[in-house]
Amino acid sequence: MTESPQVVGPAVPTEKSKAVRRPLGVPDVEITGGPLGRWQRINREASLPLAFAQMERSGSVPNLRIAAGEAEGVFQGYRFQDSDLYKTLEAVAWEHARRPAGEYLGYIRDHAGLLARAQRPDGYLNSHYQVVKPDRIYTELEYSHEMYCAGHLFQAAVAGARAGGDPELLAVARRFADHLAEVFLDGGDDGIDGHAEVETALVELHRLTGGRPYLDLAKKLIDNRGKGLIRDSGMGPLYAQDHLPVRDAATPVGHAVRQLYLEAGIVDVYLETGDESLLECSVRRWEDMVATKMYLTGGLGSRHDGEAFGERYELPPDRAYNESCAAIASIHWNWRLLLATGEARYADLIERTLYNAFAASTSADGTRFFYVNPLQRRDDHAEDACFERRREWFACACCPPNIMRTVASLGHYVATAGERRLDVHQYAPGTIRSGELDLAVATGFPWDGKVALSVERAPEGPWALALRVPAWSAATTVTVGGERAPAVPGENGYLVLERVWRQGDTVVLDLDMTPRVVHPHPRIDAVRGCAAVERGPLVYCFEQADQTADLDDLLLDPAAGPRVLPLEDLEGVGPTVLIEAGALAVRRPRDGMPYTTTPTAGSATGTRVTATAIPYFQWDNREGGAMRVWLPLA
Amino acid sequence: MTESPQVVGPAVPTEKSKAVRRPLGVPDVEITGGPLGRWQRINREASLPLAFAQMERSGSVPNLRIAAGEAEGVFQGYRFQDSDLYKTLEAVAWEHARRPAGEYLGYIRDHAGLLARAQRPDGYLNSHYQVVKPDRIYTELEYSHEMYCAGHLFQAAVAGARAGGDPELLAVARRFADHLAEVFLDGGDDGIDGHAEVETALVELHRLTGGRPYLDLAKKLIDNRGKGLIRDSGMGPLYAQDHLPVRDAATPVGHAVRQLYLEAGIVDVYLETGDESLLECSVRRWEDMVATKMYLTGGLGSRHDGEAFGERYELPPDRAYNESCAAIASIHWNWRLLLATGEARYADLIERTLYNAFAASTSADGTRFFYVNPLQRRDDHAEDACFERRREWFACACCPPNIMRTVASLGHYVATAGERRLDVHQYAPGTIRSGELDLAVATGFPWDGKVALSVERAPEGPWALALRVPAWSAATTVTVGGERAPAVPGENGYLVLERVWRQGDTVVLDLDMTPRVVHPHPRIDAVRGCAAVERGPLVYCFEQADQTADLDDLLLDPAAGPRVLPLEDLEGVGPTVLIEAGALAVRRPRDGMPYTTTPTAGSATGTRVTATAIPYFQWDNREGGAMRVWLPLA
Repeated sequence: MTESPQVVGPAVPTEKSKAVRRPLGVPDVEITGGPLGRWQRINREASLPLAFAQMERSGSVPNLRIAAGEAEGVFQGYRFQDSDLYKTLEAVAWEHARRPAGEYLGYIRDHAGLLARAQRPDGYLNSHYQVVKPDRIYTELEYSHEMYCAGHLFQAAVAGARAGGDPELLAVARRFADHLAEVFLDGGDDGIDGHAEVETALVELHRLTGGRPYLDLAKKLIDNRGKGLIRDSGMGPLYAQDHLPVRDAATPVGHAVRQLYLEAGIVDVYLETGDESLLECSVRRWEDMVATKMYLTGGLGSRHDGEAFGERYELPPDRAYNESCAAIASIHWNWRLLLATGEARYADLIERTLYNAFAASTSADGTRFFYVNPLQRRDDHAEDACFERRREWFACACCPPNIMRTVASLGHYVATAGERRLDVHQYAPGTIRSGELDLAVATGFPWDGKVALSVERAPEGPWALALRVPAWSAATTVTVGGERAPAVPGENGYLVLERVWRQGDTVVLDLDMTPRVVHPHPRIDAVRGCAAVERGPLVYCFEQADQTADLDDLLLDPAAGPRVLPLEDLEGVGPTVLIEAGALAVRRPRDGMPYTTTPTAGSATGTRVTATAIPYFQWDNREGGAMRVWLPLA
Repeated sequence: MTESPQVVGPAVPTEKSKAVRRPLGVPDVEITGGPLGRWQRINREASLPLAFAQMERSGSVPNLRIAAGEAEGVFQGYRFQDSDLYKTLEAVAWEHARRPAGEYLGYIRDHAGLLARAQRPDGYLNSHYQVVKPDRIYTELEYSHEMYCAGHLFQAAVAGARAGGDPELLAVARRFADHLAEVFLDGGDDGIDGHAEVETALVELHRLTGGRPYLDLAKKLIDNRGKGLIRDSGMGPLYAQDHLPVRDAATPVGHAVRQLYLEAGIVDVYLETGDESLLECSVRRWEDMVATKMYLTGGLGSRHDGEAFGERYELPPDRAYNESCAAIASIHWNWRLLLATGEARYADLIERTLYNAFAASTSADGTRFFYVNPLQRRDDHAEDACFERRREWFACACCPPNIMRTVASLGHYVATAGERRLDVHQYAPGTIRSGELDLAVATGFPWDGKVALSVERAPEGPWALALRVPAWSAATTVTVGGERAPAVPGENGYLVLERVWRQGDTVVLDLDMTPRVVHPHPRIDAVRGCAAVERGPLVYCFEQADQTADLDDLLLDPAAGPRVLPLEDLEGVGPTVLIEAGALAVRRPRDGMPYTTTPTAGSATGTRVTATAIPYFQWDNREGGAMRVWLPLA
């Protein structure tokens, strides 16, 4: 039945797909240190146990017990409450793939059993609709999240199956998918879900099982967008990307997470059907988004209002929404574009998103999460009670288990195989086993730019080792066989080293870790006259905790070039590299109306101070003070 | 019964109040031209007829017919639907006071009758709760708007009574007010409404009728804020100003319109009770707001999310919410502060708000309205379908009839009387009759800075004529008896001319109409490096319709000083004075990620062009293109 190779990862195109790169599985890449390794350890030790407790406390599991007729009680939470459990199950499956454990298998088995008992005989499964409004099933798709939940079930089941979990979860998923296909494909119902997600999940279920209707349904759901099939949910047609057919839409709009999951599905359907028009429209929107609607951190979705992308160049640092789930969905989309094209720009953006927008979502100890990831917090932030600090959980808890499934599956995004070729996309210490060319990676990345890759097992004959040269690395060198040379990447952004490899051969890539002062495009009104500091893949920020002056008085002096401090283990934060930058501290008194005929900005004569920056992903791990990614220029 | 003098206006403190200025009535000030006169004419001819039609179409009147048992049907609209009718009735009353008309009296009489028939025998009146959820009356005050609606009824009834309308409306209002007092004062219920408004209205009802419980209830409702009496409406305690007692809150927060109506009530209760702590806390918040939370236009409320004030210095021009109702509520608050203190800064802010944030709400022809008043609109504004252009009406139509009642009562805000003193706060052509010192005002203000005031009737003995010298007028002169001298205002911001006046005496005030390039406080991140143009009380903006280059390419050159064009009658806009400013047009191409290590802003070599500005209040009367109040500096 299975047509695809048994790669144990979340997105594995079939062999006959259009993919030009083949992913490795989660267990094929062992990450042993660095931030990624630390996140994986903490995810296992601190975050997952939180999710297990919350699945009971928040209602996700109790709701299913009610649906199964095994408990009395009132439905708790949102109509998409089931999806939190599905994401948790997926996280458990990848964690089991990474480091097998009986308790994880047991967790999957127990909950698969519950899901099987809660599932209706016809395959339908959604505790909210079964318990609260059985007469409204599939009648309010514009906001029901029924297919959205189904999608997360399918992804969990695919993960469970690939990770060697209990077969019952896959059986539940297939029964539900068959029911969807019966109604929405064979039954002729043209409905689409207000929240895209099921499309990419259906393709993956197709990849795992070979079931053709799953792919056909994914394609139909995508083709049906922009036909006005989403009745008014009160949020307008842009909110759910129903304003234009996907092939006509020029720019991502509306609810960011919905648009981004939809894009992942669009590229998935391209990969499996070869419909070039799908890849083309998705790349067009990607380019527009990257040029006009993306934060420096890779964060997406400027608006709290409607959790929307916002207009081109509307990128306020303080009110940035940048939902953690949007960062995850962006990684999904970029990964599929990378598999489809082999272009480093997609791996570059995965890196930017991973180390910044995504990583900032979680506290250093893995027990608290941001839903919203702004690039500025004012000292005075009374109006933001709900979003000002990371929280253990949320009433709408889409983010925390989404983060957990992503961290558990990080190995999937590190490298790919190709025809006599191994591409390394992300740099982390550990091992990469493609089955033919196996590598040991030693690196202090991203604190240090040196990446040493040693061949542990070599295939016969010539073989290409392709190393991504990040666009931010202005002067990269590579040492092969003791010989050092400038690393000039090819057209696709990869340095391709083709030769007959021997065990013990070592390649050292030396990335340029000079800190960078970065300026925004002049059309980005909200940060005009400001600059930010980056180093390697990391965006930095200035937290009040590290300053000697009031953060809001600081003006960055780019002439007093940033200075990198040694790696240290910072209390409450963990291993980090701080950066010091020259700055002026200028007190600007408040005096009546803040609008005058005298330009106050120009009269900045202040005190010379040192401004200290910390990687953005590590902010808000100490006091809850002010933070800025962008500092006004002196 | 009546203790206050019969001044026919919306806010008339009693004679024994703490007011240091006594308002004139709507009919005492005739405005015969200029923008204010035009708005009043258009309000009568175009806007009010729209409201009459909408009161039927939107459900406000049909709902009351259902409540009265005179019609069958389903309740339409929001739970505060009645308030639209109340504001319309108030507008009609002031319009009748301005220019009596039988049809207006009939409108008031007919609807007062309907209200009397819909009112419950115990005095309660709210069509939503009577028709939809009679068992929930007063049980969900956090969002019910029952007292909010009552407040608008009271204000309409006060207007009707002062304007000589039918007595039945006042009888309905008193029955409801008595019911509120019975429950919430004598009955000991400590509930407060989630939307402040009734406080200021209760004080006014007290002023008109002398009814002491109305004042006591207003005071209790204000004293009860900040005790956590508002149960969770899902919006948090800041939203409804229930986070702190009013005497402790340092800054306005949460839903802007609620905070601002509450402030009007706070000052009203101070005026009638003499509780200085109320005036003090309100002035403290006013000063904080003006310095840190107010737009150049006088607009208030930075956030769409929660229609909230936002944090200090959080003043994005593009996502400014600036609800039209907030501008109106700000005028109410400032007016009461002016009566309480006699300080010109409050009249200055009324002027700023009136000519900018408020006036922009309405189209030149009076038939369309903004709910939200941003200071920037991008060319590309797909995400803003609901708010991008003015609309004839809204599902939540709080703004249009609120605008109408304000325009009809504008005369009230022009001048005040005092002990042998007449203060002129706003300049418009027409007549001001205090009953003792009567003036004819001839002026082309705000297009022209010359204001000629001629004495039409003079009292015996010395008398002070106090003229506000706006803070924006850098070089003001005054000519009295043919003698020209610098106009140096006194401590309170007024030029006080005390003498024995004779009929025919003329004073000419010459305000400085030099256009001003205005810079924002450096803490306002969102408009850093930008400047705006003002002239007189008018904030200007740049609309795409008037530019030869792409608006978003323009950089203002303040060295090429702005040039004032002659008064003209602009198609679709009406009388206006445009301003030309020197600018550079710089095309900045989009090229991949909009973040680079090269500062692009500094490399601005563009084409010299003329940027043309139009008064902000006249924007969006032509095509729906881009608009900016703040232009980046060259």
